[in-house]
Order: sequence, then C-alpha cells, then structure tokens
Amino acid sequence: MSDLTRLSINQETIKQWSLPELAEGCVKAGIDKVGLWRAPVQEYGVERTARLLGDAGLSVTSLCRGGFFTATDPAERARALDDNRAAVDEAAGLSTDTLVLVSGGLPAGSRDLYGARERIADALAELAPYAAERGVRLAVEPLHPMFASDRCVVSTLSQALDIAERFPAEQVGVVVDTYHVWWDDQAPAQIARAGAGGRIHSFQLADWITPLPAGVLLGRGQLGEGSVDFRAFRQQVEAAGFAGPIEVEIFNESLWARDGAEVLAEVAARYQEHAC
Amino acid sequence: MSDLTRLSINQETIKQWSLPELAEGCVKAGIDKVGLWRAPVQEYGVERTARLLGDAGLSVTSLCRGGFFTATDPAERARALDDNRAAVDEAAGLSTDTLVLVSGGLPAGSRDLYGARERIADALAELAPYAAERGVRLAVEPLHPMFASDRCVVSTLSQALDIAERFPAEQVGVVVDTYHVWWDDQAPAQIARAGAGGRIHSFQLADWITPLPAGVLLGRGQLGEGSVDFRAFRQQVEAAGFAGPIEVEIFNESLWARDGAEVLAEVAARYQEHAC
Repeated sequence: MSDLTRLSINQETIKQWSLPELAEGCVKAGIDKVGLWRAPVQEYGVERTARLLGDAGLSVTSLCRGGFFTATDPAERARALDDNRAAVDEAAGLSTDTLVLVSGGLPAGSRDLYGARERIADALAELAPYAAERGVRLAVEPLHPMFASDRCVVSTLSQALDIAERFPAEQVGVVVDTYHVWWDDQAPAQIARAGAGGRIHSFQLADWITPLPAGVLLGRGQLGEGSVDFRAFRQQVEAAGFAGPIEVEIFNESLWARDGAEVLAEVAARYQEHAC
Repeated sequence: MSDLTRLSINQETIKQWSLPELAEGCVKAGIDKVGLWRAPVQEYGVERTARLLGDAGLSVTSLCRGGFFTATDPAERARALDDNRAAVDEAAGLSTDTLVLVSGGLPAGSRDLYGARERIADALAELAPYAAERGVRLAVEPLHPMFASDRCVVSTLSQALDIAERFPAEQVGVVVDTYHVWWDDQAPAQIARAGAGGRIHSFQLADWITPLPAGVLLGRGQLGEGSVDFRAFRQQVEAAGFAGPIEVEIFNESLWARDGAEVLAEVAARYQEHAC
C-alpha cells in the first residue's frame, strides 16, 4: 500500500544529491513533489532547474528561504529587501507558490525582541505586494525558540500569525513545521486559527531527537525516531482545512553520509508509517 | 555603589567551589544568600551544610531540584515520589522555603506531552501537602522548549501556572528563570499572572548566548553577554509584587575553569550593571 501522493521531499533532506540526482531519484520512487533551497538552485540555474523538474514531471512545493528582516542598519535592510525580491523572482521562476521566510534573529548587541518583530512586519509590508504580483505567497516560519537570538525571533505559530494576519491571507501565511512547534501546547489551537484564515502555506515534517549537536542546527531526526506525534499534527492541519503537500525537511549529517536512494526510500517508508 | 541585598548566588554558578569555599567567598563579597543543589549538599551533609551557612550568616534561597514526575511505570513513580519527599526534608533541613522542580521529560518511546503534564499534576497533589507541612513551597520551573523531550515537558510560564494553579499558592508556585523564558512574548503577561496569584517563588538570572554547545545544558551566559534584557524582567517581577531574592544560576564550563572569587566578583558586578 503506497500513498505518496501528498509527499514532498525537501532537497536538504538528501543534500548529498545534485538536482538531477534528486529529480531522477524522486521519479524512480514515485514521488512527484520537491522543496528547494536557493543556493543549490542558483548554482544549477533557476531556468535550468525549472526545465529539469518540469521534464521529470516534478512540481516545487516551496522555496527556502527569504527573510532575515531584522537588521536596524538602513543599508542592510535595503540589501535584505533586494535579496528577498530576488528570492520571490526565483520562486516564480520555479513555478512554486510559496517562499518560506526565516525572519531573522536579534542584531548584534540588541535585546529588543519586540522591535525586531516589528521590523519583520515592516519588511513584509514592502515585500508582500511584490510577491503577490508574481503569484508567490510568503510563508512566515516560526523557528524553535532555541533559534530566537540568531535566526528567527518568531518562535511560535501564535507570533507568526500575529504578524501574518496584518496582511491578506493570499499574500502572507505561516509554515507549520513539526520540528519547531511540537513542544507547544498552544500549537493545536494556533493551527486551527491558521487554517480558519487560510494561512497554512506549508506543512513540514522532521522529528525531534536528543542530544542536540553543537550549534543545534543539524540535529533533526528521521521520522519516527523521536518525540513528534506526526499523525496528530497531520490530523490537526487537515481538520483546519489544509490539503496541500506534506514536505519532509530533515537536516542531519548522518542522513547526508548515506546513499541518497536509501535515505529517500527510508523517508517514504517512515512517512507512510508515521504520518499517513 | 553596591546593592547586593537581593542577590543570591546559586552554587552551580561557581561549581569549582566547595561549600566552605562558597560560604567564605560570599561573606567576603558581602553576599548573604545562596541557592543550593542536592548532590553537593548530600555529600557535605545536610545538617553540616545548615550549620556552616548559619554560622556564616548565609540564608538559602532555594534548593534544586525535585521533580522528574513523568514516569508511567508505577515503581518508578513511587521512587520519584520518595526521592521528592527526601528533597523536601533536605530543603526543610536547610531552612529554605523553596524547592525547585524540574518536572521531567517524555518517558522513552512516548510522544504524549499532555499525559506527561497530567502526571506532573498528579505527583504534585501527593507532594504539595507533605511539603507544606514542612514549610516548603514547590516551585515548578518551566525549562526552555529545547529541553521538552528529555528534561521538562513544562516549557512556558503559562503551562507552569496552569499546573500550579490547581494548588494553593503557598504550596505550589513557579520559577521565573530568564534563561528559559526570555524568548517568549507571553512571559510578561504570565509574570503578571504569577505575581497576582502570589506564585513567583523564585526568580533566577542567566543570559542566553549562542552557539549552543553539544547537549545544550552548559551553554548559559554570564549576565550581560547575551540577549536577555534583565532590567526588563526585574521590572516585570517587581511590578507583579515580587520582592524576594534574585538568584544567579549560570551553568558554563568556562566559568568553572576560572578562579571562584574572580567569577563571583564578576557576577556581582554584572548583576549591578545589568539587573539593578
């Protein structure tokens, strides 16, 4: 019994694969959706990536990532907005409707979380109309609170929605990534809130495992080996009206050290075992 | 200008010091309060510790730690309750009114955060009257969400208060530790809630710095070197009616590698610079 119709593979999960390898591997495995990152796409070329995936019958469920909106320096803010407009253009070039945003941490020496969150909203006000004209939705991703100082001052779905709801739902929504929100007792209510507003723009899966490695970035678990109740999250987003792709995005060096096809087969099996 | 009247030094901040060294060092520095941990107190002896500190004119602001209430196995639960009654007895023996609780993570293989939180409340129902009879208040400490799976499923002040408020305020309150709650936009409102209910049983300071070390336990920052706005937190707890000791509790191997008196002087100076 294979049910991979909703599954999307984020390319960082199998970072050892080139884009052609990813395309070929997904087709062989019966998976027709991928999530992409800007750097490897830029390296391969946006148009060339679009053609490669189109020829393989693959669609792109999201592009990671825009964001980093929290600088106070005007020149740095201007550069960030320029870079985000480029990210929107790349998303449009890949025919994906969703640009994932990692909003940015505290500027050096700052302790002002509230000010940083306001600067995110200010940047979205400039960026959202630009993206909307190009058919791209901005998806604010709350990152786990352990990333609040250095990557993303938006730590919960509640905070992400407080920002997103200042804009039309077709312009700004949120990412529900189990790795970041699994611990939060308010996540179910906030998923319902996001769904009611049509703002679940992306749903991503990774498991929570410990001990965390130094720097904590590459400590995500393969589905089923950690603390996340994926089935519960899937039921919550679906009860909230979400029927989109389910993207598996795992950053873990031990997965990157293995054969890509083996990792993909494992992800597909674990997805069906734990999230279907 | 020295204002150390509210300052308490948690012994883990200067773990390289024995209890006699801690007592002597604090007296020399003009600090009259300490927070203690069970293991070094047990090693030195509870009565002997009480006598040592009493002779030095030091009071004990808190004892760390009881807790680990989340086991499902009945024998393990019984052992945890026995151990917590012993912790209460030790707190009473040290004449501190506050036992800090680290409530416990998920049992192996479990993904049921909600069930784990209920088992914490069940354990408190047994433990709180026992503690109250001995003049000891239980202080539920929300730990940063990065500890949710392996140390403490209570991740926010809101969750801690949801549990504490099932009991009388003189029996069960919460710890406000800046390291664990600094990122949370709901912390100010929850501090007000805790204060209004007379449930701020302990106020602890440590700074948030990155990169986090492997295992993330020993990555706390010296006051002033990270992202926490201590003055804002102090204002919030005081506006909420808290006038108790302000305990500095930093776990950091680089502090432990230095001369204890030098670390203590630095803590006192940083405290006055950033939290007064």
